[in-house]
Amino acid sequence: MTGYTAPLADMRFVLDEIVGLDELARLPGLESASSDTVTAVLAEAAKFAGQVLAPLNRVGDRQRSVLAGDGVKTPDGFKDAYRQFVDGGWNGIMCDPAYGGQGLPWAVALAVLEMWESANLAFSLCPVLTQAAIEALTQIGTPEQRRLYLHKLVTGEWTGTMNLTEPQAGSDVGALKARAVKAGDHYRITGTKIFITYGEHDYTDNIIHLVLARTPGAPPGTKGISLFIVPKFLVNADGSLGARNDLRAVSLEHKLGIHASPTAVMSYGDKDGAIGYLVGAEGEGMRAMFLMMNNARLTVGLEGLGIAERAYQQALAYAKERRQGRAIGASGADSSPIVLHPDVRRMLMTMKATNEAMRALAYTVAAALDRAKRERDAPARAAAQAFVDLMIPVLKGWCTDMGVEMTSLGVQIHGGMGYIEETGAAQHFRDARIAPIYEGTNGIQALDLVMRKLPRDDGAAVKKEIAAMRALDRELGAVNDPAFAAIRGPLGQATQALGAATEWMLAHLAADPKAAAAGASAYLRLFGTAYGGYMMAKSALKARARQAHNGSDAAFAAAKIATARFYAEQILAPAPGLLAPITAGAEALFAIDPELMSA
Amino acid sequence: MTGYTAPLADMRFVLDEIVGLDELARLPGLESASSDTVTAVLAEAAKFAGQVLAPLNRVGDRQRSVLAGDGVKTPDGFKDAYRQFVDGGWNGIMCDPAYGGQGLPWAVALAVLEMWESANLAFSLCPVLTQAAIEALTQIGTPEQRRLYLHKLVTGEWTGTMNLTEPQAGSDVGALKARAVKAGDHYRITGTKIFITYGEHDYTDNIIHLVLARTPGAPPGTKGISLFIVPKFLVNADGSLGARNDLRAVSLEHKLGIHASPTAVMSYGDKDGAIGYLVGAEGEGMRAMFLMMNNARLTVGLEGLGIAERAYQQALAYAKERRQGRAIGASGADSSPIVLHPDVRRMLMTMKATNEAMRALAYTVAAALDRAKRERDAPARAAAQAFVDLMIPVLKGWCTDMGVEMTSLGVQIHGGMGYIEETGAAQHFRDARIAPIYEGTNGIQALDLVMRKLPRDDGAAVKKEIAAMRALDRELGAVNDPAFAAIRGPLGQATQALGAATEWMLAHLAADPKAAAAGASAYLRLFGTAYGGYMMAKSALKARARQAHNGSDAAFAAAKIATARFYAEQILAPAPGLLAPITAGAEALFAIDPELMSA
Repeated sequence: MTGYTAPLADMRFVLDEIVGLDELARLPGLESASSDTVTAVLAEAAKFAGQVLAPLNRVGDRQRSVLAGDGVKTPDGFKDAYRQFVDGGWNGIMCDPAYGGQGLPWAVALAVLEMWESANLAFSLCPVLTQAAIEALTQIGTPEQRRLYLHKLVTGEWTGTMNLTEPQAGSDVGALKARAVKAGDHYRITGTKIFITYGEHDYTDNIIHLVLARTPGAPPGTKGISLFIVPKFLVNADGSLGARNDLRAVSLEHKLGIHASPTAVMSYGDKDGAIGYLVGAEGEGMRAMFLMMNNARLTVGLEGLGIAERAYQQALAYAKERRQGRAIGASGADSSPIVLHPDVRRMLMTMKATNEAMRALAYTVAAALDRAKRERDAPARAAAQAFVDLMIPVLKGWCTDMGVEMTSLGVQIHGGMGYIEETGAAQHFRDARIAPIYEGTNGIQALDLVMRKLPRDDGAAVKKEIAAMRALDRELGAVNDPAFAAIRGPLGQATQALGAATEWMLAHLAADPKAAAAGASAYLRLFGTAYGGYMMAKSALKARARQAHNGSDAAFAAAKIATARFYAEQILAPAPGLLAPITAGAEALFAIDPELMSA
Repeated sequence: MTGYTAPLADMRFVLDEIVGLDELARLPGLESASSDTVTAVLAEAAKFAGQVLAPLNRVGDRQRSVLAGDGVKTPDGFKDAYRQFVDGGWNGIMCDPAYGGQGLPWAVALAVLEMWESANLAFSLCPVLTQAAIEALTQIGTPEQRRLYLHKLVTGEWTGTMNLTEPQAGSDVGALKARAVKAGDHYRITGTKIFITYGEHDYTDNIIHLVLARTPGAPPGTKGISLFIVPKFLVNADGSLGARNDLRAVSLEHKLGIHASPTAVMSYGDKDGAIGYLVGAEGEGMRAMFLMMNNARLTVGLEGLGIAERAYQQALAYAKERRQGRAIGASGADSSPIVLHPDVRRMLMTMKATNEAMRALAYTVAAALDRAKRERDAPARAAAQAFVDLMIPVLKGWCTDMGVEMTSLGVQIHGGMGYIEETGAAQHFRDARIAPIYEGTNGIQALDLVMRKLPRDDGAAVKKEIAAMRALDRELGAVNDPAFAAIRGPLGQATQALGAATEWMLAHLAADPKAAAAGASAYLRLFGTAYGGYMMAKSALKARARQAHNGSDAAFAAAKIATARFYAEQILAPAPGLLAPITAGAEALFAIDPELMSA
């Protein structure tokens, strides 16, 4: 198994050239993100990821978290790593300094988070869930709730969880049955929640569960749902821990991957009902959930990149070392490293190019999240928010699908060794498979994109992006270089296809929602692939400008241009073919009665 | 976890309408394959697969085969199932009756084998390997070798293995180092072989290892390799078992999937050298290997279908039962089974359509294998063999890639439950991942297709298939039905693209082999997808003819036409987009020095 080295050069390139870090750092509240600070933060994070988290990844996969008595035993080394994580101040790097955070932009935080996800995906899930709880409490918690819980969640002294799912209520959150009955200043919570990531663990003294439940007499469906703080240990007014609350993990799931992350079945209120505190107003639970979800979907989307980057590093190292056969045109009698064989190189370049496209996309969305909060004028904030809303499902759906596909290539590059667990490539493939499922399946993301995000303002947010892609086409056309011509052609065609698909969707959404839904997943894939191509083309132009001005990183710039060209030729060029399934309608889908679908 | 019900209706449809079973059964030696016999065989096999093998699939995954002392303990129930398998006469159904086989056509045998692979992939690998040994001994064994070994391999009383790989010799078979030194009428074999499927087990009294090794003074590379019979127990002239040979399994691999199948590291000749008997002549090992491999590649390709069919049945059952949300246009307040949601239906139909295309392709290739052996005149045999040679890499590469993609959809349809091992969907996903790797990685298949099979007779075999696809276009055009128009358009474009890609390959193969190799995998994928579309279009036409003549299976015929239409609109239509990566050349692939490929 190979270690992990953070791809600092590309991370920094994306932050500087695509995100515009210097401009971002001029926004109110983000002044601490100076170039020097960011350099230091990324370097330290790279060290922690490579030296502390990465070596535990395989340990966690083999040992798994296990339920022992009333608690969970995490794998050897994880608890200590978490302590170091908290001591290093990593948990709250994008959080409000008023609560102990470092106030760094989300764009920078995402680069750091990418490192945790690459190094040890199962470990990284704990802070990701805590962050979701922080987001909800920051935005709709009472001052007293913020005082009691936020500081310790931000530092990571306590962790947070998100309790939505019940056996009968998965994608259909409105079907949940957990009950919350008012009892003075609090509520009594009863019910069973499943798939609760880090629902129980041994990292910290307390766990703050955020639980969706239904109050008596509340309307059915999503309108009757409220959000509650349900701490594992009750918290006294002075912040000290009080009595154990009436909740427990009753079992842990045996999962395909992310074995070190304890996925718990949580039982609330077996005795008198767990004590819970309302967050926001009764019936506002879904709004609160979306507050938690939006950022969680951003970070889950990033998981696709994180795990694919790890798989790439491992496959590249293997391909440079492993020798089989003689490469075409190789001289001498010796066998060649397989990185020199065209099909192996194609797989590696596919991974590299896809990862870099995902990185540019993810950090760009994160920067828009910063802008949506920090821009000085309201229209700029609104525009940034519209972009975030549009792109979150694309990021989540496309990047997590790519995570599975790229880790599969990682296995393939290893040949037979890839199928052997000790090699480690298979773990990435298993770990990656969860990301298209949780935080809203990718099917749900596609519907969110097409049914909710796309039609807002008659598609204004999409059309703005398509216009930007067209504008870039003109820039590409102005460059006299065959590599840029090779990029421009496929990008133009993909933009054209995305425009046509968007028009079709806007025209059919209301009149034939089944047809729109039938094409939604292919639309999301076209969107992600085309936008990834746009990001890579932009990167190539920036790299060219760097080449012209500065000779020091000429090799990086040349590699970026070649990678963008590869992306255009191999990944982007076939994408317009998706226009046909997007616009095919639902007739063939529903032509066969489900009872006759067996052969 | 769901059981397995053999898709007898579709299997029979493919055999009757696509393969032409009645015509096949008129060939010399295949007369036993009467319609009634085939019906009885398929029905019995379906029973055995569903009742005996399928229930063991999960047991095998959990218990795994383990090395215990000198032997391997297979999971509970497997040894008994194997005994029933042998007693039922299943092992040799496509083998020569002279050796105890049933002499059924490969086309029929493949339907049966598909059932084993669906029901219990790990179990099915043992007879698949035995079959490869049978093939080699039948074709190049001496009469005495055939007398001693073949009958017991055909009945399954003994099993066979294929020993090619060594740590330094995977795809590069020519790099193997195992040694064979002549000692009178036999050889002494020494060396280590890895990834030996069923290299050791407790099913039978003896195991016949076929081992590639190098004789002293033999030329380097593949020309110096010979094939040897190396039995676990030596066989006396009267067929009784003699001394234990000097070979043993030293460890079993911990694999991502197919846990019940023991994958052994075999050590030969730790003491005095294992006794081995030359098969064919010295230096003919590679030819022998290809004899074993060609059929093994056919059956491994079929594994993609087998596992995808199992995953489909499980996902369909779940989607009909699981209720979440209300489907578009559903009346009432109840939640709908998720099979009614467009994106879930799209995934299910993708599985169904892909599986049916794979089935038609696989049985067609198997029937050509029959014709290549049995046709009365030599040109007909040669034509069938040319088709087999061309299609084997397509079948192996495309179907095994589809196996991974379809089992991944199977996981996705289950949502969070898909990630939980107890559900069983994840096992199919793990099991499927081996098939693109072994018996020649799919990269090797693509090179075999483009570099060896395609250029034979200047592409005559491919051009013949493209001409057949064009001829079908005219048939489709003659049908006055919008479903057939929807099939015709994408098939025409895919045929066009396949023709253009083929011309490009033929033009570039010699002059720019790197460029051809760079596009080989995309070419194979286009080939498989387009040919699958051709198979489905043919099926739709046959179904329509059935509808006209016979009302009894009208629902099946209507479903087949709808499935073919879905395939055309959703799977086939985007395929011509692959023409761009196929013809992009190798420049962007090799633009970056491997040492600079890290980011």
